Amino acid sequence: MENLKQYIEDNKQRFLDELFELIRIPSISSLSEHKQDMYKAAELWKKYLLDAGADEARIYDTEGHPILYAEKIIDPKKPTVLVYGHMDVMPVDPIDLWESEPFEPEIRDGKIYARGADDDKGQAFMHTKAFEFMVKTNQLPVNVKFMIEGEEEIGSPNLTKWCAEYKDMLEADIILVSDTGMIAQDVPSITTGLRGLTYLQIEVTGPNRDLHSGLFGGAVANPLNVLADIIAKMTDEDNRVTIPGFYDDVLEASDEERKKLNQAPFSKEAYKKAIDVEELDGEKGYTTIERTGIRPSFDLCGMWGGYTGEGAKTVLPSKAYAKLSSRLVPNQDHEKIGKMIKDHIEKIAPKSVKVEVTPLHGGQAYVCPIEIPAYKAAEKAFEEAFGKMPVPVRSGGSIPIISTFDKVLGTKSILMGFGLESDAIHSPNENYPLFNFYKGIETIPLFYKHFAEMK
Amino acid sequence: MENLKQYIEDNKQRFLDELFELIRIPSISSLSEHKQDMYKAAELWKKYLLDAGADEARIYDTEGHPILYAEKIIDPKKPTVLVYGHMDVMPVDPIDLWESEPFEPEIRDGKIYARGADDDKGQAFMHTKAFEFMVKTNQLPVNVKFMIEGEEEIGSPNLTKWCAEYKDMLEADIILVSDTGMIAQDVPSITTGLRGLTYLQIEVTGPNRDLHSGLFGGAVANPLNVLADIIAKMTDEDNRVTIPGFYDDVLEASDEERKKLNQAPFSKEAYKKAIDVEELDGEKGYTTIERTGIRPSFDLCGMWGGYTGEGAKTVLPSKAYAKLSSRLVPNQDHEKIGKMIKDHIEKIAPKSVKVEVTPLHGGQAYVCPIEIPAYKAAEKAFEEAFGKMPVPVRSGGSIPIISTFDKVLGTKSILMGFGLESDAIHSPNENYPLFNFYKGIETIPLFYKHFAEMK
Repeated sequence: MENLKQYIEDNKQRFLDELFELIRIPSISSLSEHKQDMYKAAELWKKYLLDAGADEARIYDTEGHPILYAEKIIDPKKPTVLVYGHMDVMPVDPIDLWESEPFEPEIRDGKIYARGADDDKGQAFMHTKAFEFMVKTNQLPVNVKFMIEGEEEIGSPNLTKWCAEYKDMLEADIILVSDTGMIAQDVPSITTGLRGLTYLQIEVTGPNRDLHSGLFGGAVANPLNVLADIIAKMTDEDNRVTIPGFYDDVLEASDEERKKLNQAPFSKEAYKKAIDVEELDGEKGYTTIERTGIRPSFDLCGMWGGYTGEGAKTVLPSKAYAKLSSRLVPNQDHEKIGKMIKDHIEKIAPKSVKVEVTPLHGGQAYVCPIEIPAYKAAEKAFEEAFGKMPVPVRSGGSIPIISTFDKVLGTKSILMGFGLESDAIHSPNENYPLFNFYKGIETIPLFYKHFAEMK
Repeated sequence: MENLKQYIEDNKQRFLDELFELIRIPSISSLSEHKQDMYKAAELWKKYLLDAGADEARIYDTEGHPILYAEKIIDPKKPTVLVYGHMDVMPVDPIDLWESEPFEPEIRDGKIYARGADDDKGQAFMHTKAFEFMVKTNQLPVNVKFMIEGEEEIGSPNLTKWCAEYKDMLEADIILVSDTGMIAQDVPSITTGLRGLTYLQIEVTGPNRDLHSGLFGGAVANPLNVLADIIAKMTDEDNRVTIPGFYDDVLEASDEERKKLNQAPFSKEAYKKAIDVEELDGEKGYTTIERTGIRPSFDLCGMWGGYTGEGAKTVLPSKAYAKLSSRLVPNQDHEKIGKMIKDHIEKIAPKSVKVEVTPLHGGQAYVCPIEIPAYKAAEKAFEEAFGKMPVPVRSGGSIPIISTFDKVLGTKSILMGFGLESDAIHSPNENYPLFNFYKGIETIPLFYKHFAEMK
């Protein structure tokens, strides 16, 4: 594409200023007090898409947060790319671990530090700017549609229904998504698989009020101890989930597949050092890459109960809570597994407490075929921009809506991710290197070029 | 004693008003922001003791919260009673479960609702008013000393040293304490045994920051899962602590002792109903009374980590915490057991995490002899005030300082408690029935009378 690098160079400060404006809106989808911020983010992004050259842009209300849609149809007979992204972000706690304000982006050591800098404002915004470049330089080779939602971080509860309702409007040849990572700045990669997810909340009630742990301790079941026991019982010494049937639907990878998977560049020492742990731990018999790529997980995302303040308050608490998430692999159904976990917990809970298990979120795993033109186009785009072929990888993360797109719209997705593991998404000090931001804007138009040529 | 009931009747509103003033001072010892409130409480209580007739009253600074001392010496050759109480209270969380403001006392259904209404402002204040009655009616038969501390709820970290320093000043024949309960309003009881306590905080660190539970889940040890596992491993299916040596020093009660203990009035159905649980649970082979009276406990007082807010945030947390308390029985040394638990946790923790165990609090168990004159005097006082002999009971609670008094001052303590199980001490909606408050003020002077006669 002509003038690509020059256009980015000439506009780099403006691109950043515009992104910062978006980041400053604290669009946290899981906290109801930020409902209006989601509309603010949608309005601003709508303006950016219209300025970039969209024919039209509309904000759709849902039962939850809004969805932004925009399009530019250059010729109905030409192929169409549907860009998916999300404007909502994760909560910022623990807030005291942030080195700068989460919603006031700051550049340090060549990286943008802010909530949403990578996930997904930073990455999705690259598409807006790549689109702008193609329109302004008259090089847009296909039709483009944008679908930017506000509920990705809470499991996209309203997007499926909306997609079904506007199926015709959303018709496209491929969905293009930047909401994943790459191996390193000099090792581009394309995510070809995503894990599914089931997420449950457990509430254990013991006595009807907090009790004096001296007067009652030893004679009344303690809900925190009971909950710890329930959680502990659900995995064994080999870190395998003990719930009967849990692994039944897992497609075991062949020896050859596993061999290929383990050929991806990976340094165990560097991995351990980056997160500062002495030993890695996971399901026996699998490598780290396999444990996150092709095996399900079983993690507490939160647990709380009793006294959590300063000092030594003694109490036998009435309640204990946990948030439990299990990442699932292709062929495991999230609803089936969610119900299996719920039933199992209710079965093993002792009669001395009451247990309530509530499913909060779920999504299916996804596998992207690597033979389709869009995948080949993405490969070529990365090769041209980075000077080397991208590696196909299975990610441990989940974007539940991707498998839903396949099912509801009948359209495959290409996951062109530009994030790095060190971006600390979902964590304090989330960041996104300026290199990746600008390199993404440079790579995306090349995808369009190769995709148009191949179709 | 002459005019006892009349004096209480004539002054009942004033007694209540004065107590309410004390309760309104939020003297929470575990929270450093309330340091000045402890001094406010000490100053007010000092005034009350001087008004009641103390010769002198002084506030002593310590490295932590202050100690209030007062005395009235009528004749150095006469016996001396040392009254112990505490002006500090527990924190009030969870605040949303309170039906009225914790520090604005309210009378509902004949009970005072407020933090400290029973423990221990309400109970210790009865001694101030009983003392006032005896002084004002010229019936005080012995010398009286008061020692009101501000750190009981955090384990009295500075009182031992202070007692050693002022040993001569604190010389007494008996220590009188109202900081325990009685079986029911029509079943008076005297606590003859208290459990000891060791209290530890556990901090488990996994990765150096919160991680994305999708990208890392399954390959990196989750500190919450690890902590749940550690806790679960420390007790077995019979609810016995599995730490080697934990029960070694426990004095096993004889069959006869156990038989006697189980003769105390106790309704399992009423007990279960009061706390709304379907089944009781505890160490196999022991009754509920035994489980709290003569057996150690092992309770989580708190546990927390990861995301604890609204909705379904996915995260693999960096940290997990627990507060662990074990109530101990006579002959178990709290420092030995504390170290045993700490060493055991450090031993069983996997190398995939870092574990830090910090002892926060501890105290020895206590047994009160029932043959001494002071015990007999207390029996007679209860009998006279309530019309029936009190039952000796072993309480599951701990007042660590009581065994310290025995060791440092060489003085035994009599635990004349007037609280009820339904007083919800340490819990939301702590309360103290007006009946118990006034009946306590009536019973205490009778103790002095009988004690003076017996010595």
